[in-house]
Parts: sequence; C-alpha cells; structure tokens
Amino acid sequence: MRFRRAGVLVLFCLSAATFAVAQVRQEIRFPDVAGYRTLKCDLHMHTVFSDGLVWPTVRVDEAWRQGLDAISITDHIEYKPHRDDVSVDQNRPFELAAARARERNIILIRGAEITRETPPGHFNAIFLRDVAPLEVKDFFEVFRQAAAQQAFVFWNHPGWKGPEAGRWTDDHARIHAEGQLHGVEICNGNTWYEDGHRYALEKNLVLIGTSDEHGPFGDRPWTAEEHRTLTLVLAAERSEQGIREALFAGRTLVWCQNRLFGRPDHLAAMFEAAVEVRAPHARHKGETIAELINRCALDLELERVAGPGPSRIRVPAGGTVLVRFRESPDGDAARPVYRVTNMLSAPGKPLEAALQVPAPELPQAQPG
Amino acid sequence: MRFRRAGVLVLFCLSAATFAVAQVRQEIRFPDVAGYRTLKCDLHMHTVFSDGLVWPTVRVDEAWRQGLDAISITDHIEYKPHRDDVSVDQNRPFELAAARARERNIILIRGAEITRETPPGHFNAIFLRDVAPLEVKDFFEVFRQAAAQQAFVFWNHPGWKGPEAGRWTDDHARIHAEGQLHGVEICNGNTWYEDGHRYALEKNLVLIGTSDEHGPFGDRPWTAEEHRTLTLVLAAERSEQGIREALFAGRTLVWCQNRLFGRPDHLAAMFEAAVEVRAPHARHKGETIAELINRCALDLELERVAGPGPSRIRVPAGGTVLVRFRESPDGDAARPVYRVTNMLSAPGKPLEAALQVPAPELPQAQPG
Amino acid sequence: MRFRRAGVLVLFCLSAATFAVAQVRQEIRFPDVAGYRTLKCDLHMHTVFSDGLVWPTVRVDEAWRQGLDAISITDHIEYKPHRDDVSVDQNRPFELAAARARERNIILIRGAEITRETPPGHFNAIFLRDVAPLEVKDFFEVFRQAAAQQAFVFWNHPGWKGPEAGRWTDDHARIHAEGQLHGVEICNGNTWYEDGHRYALEKNLVLIGTSDEHGPFGDRPWTAEEHRTLTLVLAAERSEQGIREALFAGRTLVWCQNRLFGRPDHLAAMFEAAVEVRAPHARHKGETIAELINRCALDLELERVAGPGPSRIRVPAGGTVLVRFRESPDGDAARPVYRVTNMLSAPGKPLEAALQVPAPELPQAQPG
Amino acid sequence: MRFRRAGVLVLFCLSAATFAVAQVRQEIRFPDVAGYRTLKCDLHMHTVFSDGLVWPTVRVDEAWRQGLDAISITDHIEYKPHRDDVSVDQNRPFELAAARARERNIILIRGAEITRETPPGHFNAIFLRDVAPLEVKDFFEVFRQAAAQQAFVFWNHPGWKGPEAGRWTDDHARIHAEGQLHGVEICNGNTWYEDGHRYALEKNLVLIGTSDEHGPFGDRPWTAEEHRTLTLVLAAERSEQGIREALFAGRTLVWCQNRLFGRPDHLAAMFEAAVEVRAPHARHKGETIAELINRCALDLELERVAGPGPSRIRVPAGGTVLVRFRESPDGDAARPVYRVTNMLSAPGKPLEAALQVPAPELPQAQPG
Repeated sequence: MRFRRAGVLVLFCLSAATFAVAQVRQEIRFPDVAGYRTLKCDLHMHTVFSDGLVWPTVRVDEAWRQGLDAISITDHIEYKPHRDDVSVDQNRPFELAAARARERNIILIRGAEITRETPPGHFNAIFLRDVAPLEVKDFFEVFRQAAAQQAFVFWNHPGWKGPEAGRWTDDHARIHAEGQLHGVEICNGNTWYEDGHRYALEKNLVLIGTSDEHGPFGDRPWTAEEHRTLTLVLAAERSEQGIREALFAGRTLVWCQNRLFGRPDHLAAMFEAAVEVRAPHARHKGETIAELINRCALDLELERVAGPGPSRIRVPAGGTVLVRFRESPDGDAARPVYRVTNMLSAPGKPLEAALQVPAPELPQAQPG
Repeated sequence: MRFRRAGVLVLFCLSAATFAVAQVRQEIRFPDVAGYRTLKCDLHMHTVFSDGLVWPTVRVDEAWRQGLDAISITDHIEYKPHRDDVSVDQNRPFELAAARARERNIILIRGAEITRETPPGHFNAIFLRDVAPLEVKDFFEVFRQAAAQQAFVFWNHPGWKGPEAGRWTDDHARIHAEGQLHGVEICNGNTWYEDGHRYALEKNLVLIGTSDEHGPFGDRPWTAEEHRTLTLVLAAERSEQGIREALFAGRTLVWCQNRLFGRPDHLAAMFEAAVEVRAPHARHKGETIAELINRCALDLELERVAGPGPSRIRVPAGGTVLVRFRESPDGDAARPVYRVTNMLSAPGKPLEAALQVPAPELPQAQPG
Repeated sequence: MRFRRAGVLVLFCLSAATFAVAQVRQEIRFPDVAGYRTLKCDLHMHTVFSDGLVWPTVRVDEAWRQGLDAISITDHIEYKPHRDDVSVDQNRPFELAAARARERNIILIRGAEITRETPPGHFNAIFLRDVAPLEVKDFFEVFRQAAAQQAFVFWNHPGWKGPEAGRWTDDHARIHAEGQLHGVEICNGNTWYEDGHRYALEKNLVLIGTSDEHGPFGDRPWTAEEHRTLTLVLAAERSEQGIREALFAGRTLVWCQNRLFGRPDHLAAMFEAAVEVRAPHARHKGETIAELINRCALDLELERVAGPGPSRIRVPAGGTVLVRFRESPDGDAARPVYRVTNMLSAPGKPLEAALQVPAPELPQAQPG
Repeated sequence: MRFRRAGVLVLFCLSAATFAVAQVRQEIRFPDVAGYRTLKCDLHMHTVFSDGLVWPTVRVDEAWRQGLDAISITDHIEYKPHRDDVSVDQNRPFELAAARARERNIILIRGAEITRETPPGHFNAIFLRDVAPLEVKDFFEVFRQAAAQQAFVFWNHPGWKGPEAGRWTDDHARIHAEGQLHGVEICNGNTWYEDGHRYALEKNLVLIGTSDEHGPFGDRPWTAEEHRTLTLVLAAERSEQGIREALFAGRTLVWCQNRLFGRPDHLAAMFEAAVEVRAPHARHKGETIAELINRCALDLELERVAGPGPSRIRVPAGGTVLVRFRESPDGDAARPVYRVTNMLSAPGKPLEAALQVPAPELPQAQPG
C-alpha cells in the first residue's frame, strides 16, 4: 500500500514491492552535436486541468523515466471539460508539478494552449510567467499578451481538423507579421503535417514536434518506430534559458516514428555525430569489410548515391552492421555518398551524407 | 492530436496513429472452474478524487485492456489531499466512470476506503449505493452505515503501517462480531500479509487481493511474476450480483506475484482445470514421455511427493513441457502426486495434487 | 556443463540452470477449422548434411518449442558443400532426427531437395522412404523415382534466382502432366512469389509456404509480422498419413508475415473459426457497441464493404477490440460485410466475410 | 531462399527478407577500466565436431551479434559422438571458422577440451597452434604438449560431475606445480562453483567464466539475469596477444547471472568506471537529491555500510535512479560507503565502495 501525502516527495530507491511503473530513468540515444547539448523536449501535453487524464506530477514522472530533459504542460485555456470537478485556475498545473520537477531534475516550462475554432486553430505559448492574462476573448489580444511575456508561440497540428484545417489564413499572417508566431508543429503525436512542414520552411518558422498526450503514457520500452514524438533542442546549456535561446534561434530537430526532420546543417551534424565507419578490418575478393556503427535512436536507412558500398544499408538504433566497400584501384580511401531516407530537411528531401571510411587496418598477410 | 470531448465516447477501431497505450484487450489466462466463471477483479484503487493520480475513466480503460471483469474505485473518504483543486463529492469517481464502464463492458462497483489511524487502519466498503453517508466521525457508525447498504467490507493491508499495524484489536473483533467485516486483503500490491492470511483463515474472512494502485498502470505485457494483484472471483454469472454472491460465499482466489492463494478446494479445482497431462506418446528405457500443459497464468512449480516422475517440474504460464514417468511393472497408469509450491491454502501449506496421466498411446513397434 | 551423450534423450523438466534456449513449447494460435485439425507444418529446411548450419536434432527441438506439428528436413541431394567433413549419406539427417522426433511428438517426414540449375530450379520431394534413389543425373528420372515412392513434390521458390527464375518451362509442364508435380511454394522465407501463386491457381497446384531455413532459429517470441513461414495443413488426423492425405487433397493455408493465403473456402472457414463478435453490450447515440475477438495469430485488418460498422478495424492477434454498429431502424441484427485485406485467395483478392453480430443483450433501462 | 555457397562470405546489409536471426551487433555495456580494454570473451563452447549441435561458423556469428570480442571453440579431443558422420580432425572447427572470424572482426582462439574421467575431469587448453598433438593417452603428457605450445590451461566446471567432482587431487596438484594449469572455471553456464572459486583464490589460479554452450544460442535480448556467462578480460590491446597477456597476468572478471566476480582491485575499478553520482540538484527537508547512473550491464544492488544515503539502492543496468543523502551539518560533501552485494571478490565477500557525491549544484533561491 502506498499512502500518498500531498506535496511530499517519495523516492523509491529500492522498488517498493508493487507492480507498477518502475522509477528508473532510461536515456534517449541522441548524441550532442555541433557543440550543443541535444536536449529532449516535449512541449505539448495535457492534464486533468483541461481535457487530460492525469495529475500534473505524472507528466514529470513520465518525462524523467523516459529520459527527457524538459516538458511544458499546456492545458487548454478556453476548454475545461472537467470544470464541474476541477479548478479552472490556469496556473495550477505548473504550480502542482514544479516541486516534483525540481526533485527529478526536469526543466518544467510554464505553457498553455490557446484553443480557437479552426481556422485559425490552436497555438501553444510557452515560457509564460502567468497564464491568466491570456484568457481573453479577442484573438489578437491573446498573442499580444503572450508577446508581452516574451513567450515562444507555435501553431499546433496544422492539419487538424475539418475542411479548413491547415489553411494559412490572414489571421496567421497577421500574428506572424507582428512577430508573435515563432514555430509550427510539423509533427503532433504520430502525424507528420507535410503542409505545415512546407509553411514552416517558407515562413522560416521553427520546427516543433510534440506528443500532445492526454492520457497516461505506457511503459513499454521504446522502439525506433514507436516512441514519444519529441523536439530535440540543440542548446548551449541544459536550462530553461538554454532552451529558450535555442528555440528562438531555430536549432531544433523533430523526431517522429523513426524519422528525423530538421535543417540540413542540423541533420548533417547529427548524422556525423551518430554514425561511425570503423577502419576496414578484412578484405575479400577486392572488397574491404568494415563495421558501421549507429549511435542514435533512429533505425538508419541509407541508399547509395555514389561511390563504393552496398546499394542499401539499414542500421538499427544502437547497432552495428558489416558493410563491404569495393577497393579503388589506386588504394585511395573510399568516400561513398548515401541518401539517408529517414532524415529529411523537407518533404521529399532526404539528407545526403558522405560516409567517412578510414584507411584499412589490415593484417600484413591476409590469406584468402 | 486528440481533442477529447467530455463525456463523449471515443472508440479507436483503427489505431489513431499516436504513440500511446493501445486500446486492445488481452485476456488473462485463468480457466473457469467448478462450474463457475473465473472473474478477474481488482477491488481497491484510487483516482485524483483522493490521493490517486488519474481520472476515473482511466481505471476503466486499464481494466478493459488488462482483461479484467470488474473493478471498484475506492477513494479515501477522509483523506482528500487534492481538495484545493478537486471536488470532494464522494460519489463523483463512480459517476464519472460509469458510462465508460458500460461502454467497455466492465463491471464497475461503487466503493470507498474508510481511512482511520492504525490500528484499526483502513477498510474498503463495496457495493455501496451512496458513499456520502459513510463520511461520519464515529468509527462504528461508519460500519453500521455500510451494513445498512448491504456492503461487503474488508480490512486493507493488515500489516501497514507502524508498530501497531496488523494487530487484531477489539475494534476489529467488534465489527466482525456485528457481521460488518467480511474479508481481508491478504495481498495488497506485491505484499503478501502472512499474518493477515492467518487471521482470515482463523476468523473465516474472505481472501482478497488488490492492487491499491494510485498512479497509472504501465502497458508492458504481464509476466507470471509481474502483474496486477487480483482477486479471482468464482461467480455463477458475470454481473455485479454474481460477484456479490460469490464474495459473501467466500469463493475467491488471490493472485499475487506468481502465487495463488485460496481455499484447498478452490485451488484444487483451478489446478485440475489448468493442468493437463497428455497420454504418453513415447517410451525410452522403461520410462514413458508425456506432454504436460499449463493453461493458466501461473508459472507452475511442482515438487514430487510420491509416485513416478521428475523430482521437480516447472511449467511456464501457457506452456508445455515434456515429462517422463517410470513405467510400473504391471502396466498400470501412473498417478504421481505433486506439491504445487506456488498454490497455497495457508502460509506454508502448498496444494498437493495428483497428476492424471492417461494410458499411453504408443505406436505398436517402437524401436529403441 | 552439459555433456551430451550421442543418441541419449535428455529431458529438462527443471531448467538446467544455463542461459540457453528454454525447452518449453508454445502453441501457435490457429483454431481447428471445418472439421479438420489445423496442423502447423514446415516442409523445407536444411542441416549440416547439405548447406545448413545445425545438427538434424536441432530442427526437431525448434519445431517442438515453436508449436509445430510436423517438419520435413530437405537437404540438397546434389549440393553438399560440407562433403569434406560430413557424410553425404542422403538418409542420415532423417535417421539422426527420428528418435528425437518421437520423443518430442513431432511428425518427421523424410524429404529431400532436388537441386538443379534455374530453370527448372529446385523441388522438394517429401514422404520418401529412401532418398538415395533420387540421386540420379537425368532430370525426369528423379521425378519418376519420387513418384515411385508416392512422394508429394513441390516446386521451390519459383522466382529465385536469375533472369529465368519463375518461368514455367516445358520441363515443368512435362512433370506436371505426368502427375509428378503437386504443389508450389508461394511463400519461401519472407518472400511471397506472386507469379508462383498465380501458376498454382492456374495449374491447380497445392499452396505451400516454408521457411527454407539454413541457420538456427532464434527464440524471440513471434509477432504477427515476424514468425516462421508455415503451411497450415487441414488434416483429418494428426499423423503423417493425415498430412499426406490433406496435402494431396489441397487443404492448405500459407502463413507468411501477417498474411494468410489459401482457397476461399479455407480462408472463410478460418475467419469464421477465429473471429467472434459478442452480442452488443451498450448503446450510445443510435449505435450499439460490441466486442470483436480475434482468436488467431494474424493481426486482422478489415475494411468495410457494406453494412454498419467502422470503415476499418484492426484486431491484433489474440486481442479484443470494441466496435460500434449503427442500429437499423427496424431493430434487425446487423450484418456488416468486411474485406479482410490480409487473407488472400489470390494476388489482389482479399476474402470478403460477413460479421455475425448477435442481437444486443442490453440492460432494460440504459441511461444516456 | 538462401543458397549458401561454401566458404563464400555473405553479408546482409539490408535484411534479406527472411524471418531469422538478424545480423546486427549489439554491444555489451561494460566500460573499459584502469587503462585496459574490457574484452568480452567466451573461451569454452562446442560444435558438431564433438558433441555440439552447430557448425563452427555459427559460433562466430553468435559472438559478433552478441557483442563479444573473442571466442575459443573447444571441442572435446577424446569424445566424438558424431564420428560416424563428421570428421574427427581436431583442427577442423578452427579452420572452418577462421575466415568468418576475420570477416566479423572476432578474435578466434584455437582451443580444445581435454576430456577425462572425473576426477581429474575436463580442462581447456587455448592459444594452441595445433590440437592434434594433445590427442595422447597419458594424462600428464597432454599437459606437457599443451605447455610446449605455450597454451593457457584451465580446469573446467570443477564440481561436475559425480561424487568425486570438484576434488583437488594429486593430479591437479602435479600439473599445477609444473606450471601447466593456469585457471579455473568458477562459472560454467549458469552454475557458480563456489568451491572452485575458493581453490582459485587459494592456488592463485585465474578466474574464468564460460558458457560451455552445445546448442545454438537464442536471440532474445539479454537481461541482467539472463545472459551468456563471460570472462571480461582486461587487456592492453584488442588482439589475441592482448588477451593472452591479460589471462596469464590474471586480469579477468567473471560475469554470471547478474553477478560479477573478480579480484578486489578489478571490481573496484569496474565499479568506479560504471557508477556516477551526479552533483545533487535539489534539496528537501535537510536532504539533497542526486542522480545515480549505472553504465554497466549489471543490475547493481547496494547496501549501505556507512554514511548518509538510503539503506538499499538498486540501479538497473544502464539506468538512473534518484537517491537522497542527508546533508552534513558542516556542508561537507557526502561520502557514503556501500556494499555491492553482486560484485564478489570471494564467496561471501562483496565489494565495498565509497560513492563519490560531488558538491551540490543547487539554485540560489530554492523554495520549499
């Protein structure tokens, strides 16, 4: 039996002998890149304080167990279906979760979801100091209030729902022109909004991916295909300020169902940090054989564009495969170019990357 | 994105393309026994309406996915740590979950946890029509109110917490004498209360096992060792009335961490329903070889008491193993007796069961 | 340490305390259909006696653990790459595995792979009494020898390999005309040969699916997508004779990567045996809600053709989902028709099946 | 279909569309320690060339997939139950596996098992150049032959089998005195030989742990409890020579069923490399809270000996848990001492280790 006292920290160092979700953190395998920390962030989720199904502290526990660095609880400002039973104070979710977040070393960012008919739809404002001022009727006033708090604002699920969903309207154009709209969810849950992705690139909006979870998360181990959709924020430091700076600077990658979306330079940096080809260790019939190591959480899918090497290579997350490269007549190091079909800088635009194959380290006398 | 409308049934027949807990029900493998339905029940759990962390409908969804037949949400009557934010109406958890339970075909039993200092400790009253009358100061009046509603009442976690925990006091004796205490949790979460088990047998109290869960359940597949602690109720029909009749008649088994506790006749009936030895199909060096099939969710652990057969047999849940029996000189069918070390009628008292080994079905000419 | 004595049966009733593959059988979930036993058979695999990598007894152990009923070891007659180290006696694989098969209750069928250039390619002959006579040079003589032993013969992987692969040549036509070719592998490993499937239907050849495994199988639990490709043989009895009769009668289904291939009547019988819609138990807004149960190992994928019900339904293997059916104005039982997109009687021809929805069993007074 | 050509390297860079064991390598999580590479080695296993059940190349494939660095195939010299069908050439297993090992970058060490009655029992000789000279009748001559090749020799499973098993006889004493016996298997499969462990310490023999596998390995992911028993060799370089030097120098750890055995200095070095306590990040009621990270493949089990901290801590392999330390009145850094109950330098002698807890990095103004 666990008798929970409100506001009291309960740390289970030794499992409390119950069948339940284990309180152990597992890291997510994405290396730091390009001199930045790769922070794993989910900036859109709900609790019982709007239409979600869990208490705010649950969001912190989930984030910690799942290896996240930062979350924002973004309950709907205008939509409170539990209002007969639960407080409608807009700041309560943050306040209730804050102590738990400090204990678990999770960066908790105060946020809220601006919830209007579609179009224009829903928007998240994060880095707020007080959500209450955003509870106003006028659409444009909300964004002014968010801007007054230096919030980072992004358009949510730009394809949901109804016939008008995803349309870039004058309303969007206006808040964008005012500098009050900074990003767009190109992925929400397991849905990739390709049109939203195109807008984002066209309008230079920051790429965001979120879970938008309402219920509790399960505790199955993640696979490359089945995981929480996240924004990887490339931050100078692991702090709320670090995330804010990186978001406004547009240093994000979006991880959704075994795909990674982002700017070409960020994708290239992640590929370089994650993939290593070891020096070929064997030779067979004019080919050298080398180990290719994948140190990230994607199952990487490669198609050859030029140079020696297999036409397709698939390297599971965290795994190593063997690849063989045709030896060049002059003994030069191979430099094959591959298309990474699940790292995309735009719809239809996969990353192209050169594999760095070191010079072979072969034994002197290698029998057939 | 899933925009949840309060009180509206949302059925995901095709997965809604989000990483989240799948809405698929998996049955729990315990066969019906002795002419009764084996109903899987959890009669103790919490929600945000006391010190739990999930909305009441989550308890129904979990129960359905996990293969349960019935649950009782038993929020604390006297302990409401979320009272600043959540309604203290004692009947709300049931009311909010009832429609969801009808939709998911889960039997939802109205209940509550009577929460006093230890001793006497905590008690659950279930099959209530109205929880409110139980919110009274006088300890004995609470039980009179429960009795007035024909509730089934059991003592919770009789070993928690503090130096006095688990002591059978005059208070317990009095409500028991009045016929107002009917059962005891011999298992709560993953804890087996051996003293509580002894009381239960001594006082003829009904054996109950519950999860007492406060947080969300995960969604890892259950193993024989790691699963939700349940009461298996042997009921004449799958209905609230069927469960009530069976509980008052004491027809229960308690499943906790790969052990099954219950009355000897119920354990024997479950063993007989779950275990089959097929007719031996091969012969080798004076021994016959047969398949032993385990059709229940326990990893069965057997130790030989008498007769032919291996000294120990372990049959994983749902699995089949091969066993060899020494042939009797007169060709009689073997009838080995085994101790089932994880089916216990009392602390230290494992079930003894005879394996029914049919006559061999061996081919005529069986070469060495 | 396990010191293995040749030819001695070692039964591990209690795990022998080693990390290794557990000797426990897990059944494959396909119900018996249409009055027949559904036997799980793999009729194509190799050992060290041709180009495989395991000892013949390993094939029996794998089959038993994986829930199979019957296997045929079909080492290449003409291709013996291990001939410097291993006997080339064509009957040894069967002889070495036979005792193990009796002990494990696996039906072991003597077979061999006729291995010629492509075209005509490779063929399996099974139910042989002696493989040696098939080791002859003349192509047509091999088939005469097989026929003389009443063998069942099928064309292997009709699409492998080279530009000529899968072509139905005069050679095929001739042995077919002579009644010496009876079936074709429409699936081999994870490859579905669509052209082979078309030939099979055109020429009235029996549908076969096999693993053609050369290495050891792993021991991960199977998923609907990842499993050993099998032929489900609908046999009047579980015996070699039962399988032979069923094969010559063409009563087979082929299970490959979450698809089931077969004649329409066999597919329909399997669907009927595997799928149950329970009587609707709840009503909401003019719709009734019912549980749909899938008792087979396929993740079933349904698309509505006519009648009430969701446009698409996905029911994981062994799982239950909720579906809602629009109520007909006159209260008649619903009878929706669905296309089962992963049960195919020919390339592009999914099974169409009517769901049997029983009359609702709803409580008298069902509040909104 | 996969038609295997003898001696030809087949590399599957893209999965060959068959259900089978995936050809992907997963590393084993044990960090390098004390300036040495931590090489994962299994120095005892069998193939069809004695009483094993797989072809020699299978041992290389398994080793590569499972993250090993080196193996030795050690078929019995005197025990050849497959002699009717398989060559008895003592050097064939090595010769057949050598090319595969080069391709997969696995260090293949030529070895053999000297197989005598018990006592004295079985012994492995590794780093041989030619196994044939060891096939001699005289017991002592065998060891002279091994010594002539500078072999490393260890006593196998010193507790198997029969009443005399595990007895240190004059024969053992003699070869030991001659410098012809260097190590002892303290773990073989999942069995820990405690007496063997005591001998090893008493006689200063090198600690070895092996799988002694005869059948194929499965492909389930390893858990902390269920994995192949290995010797972790602390080598100056990843090469056969590096392993030889380290073995003769006694730099080994033995990993068996979530326990690590070894010399105190090696265990301490592994603990230090694997465990990190981060600087406390939060404070609550006179305690600081910090993350404890476990970077090795053991589920670490800690019991407090002295200093602040929880009485027991369990940190799953690769996981992070939160621990709270009582703050010292003078603000000094905490330095709690823990017993690591599953890192043992001798039977009954767990490692004691001080946790390095850095000075807190707490925010200036930390609200309650």
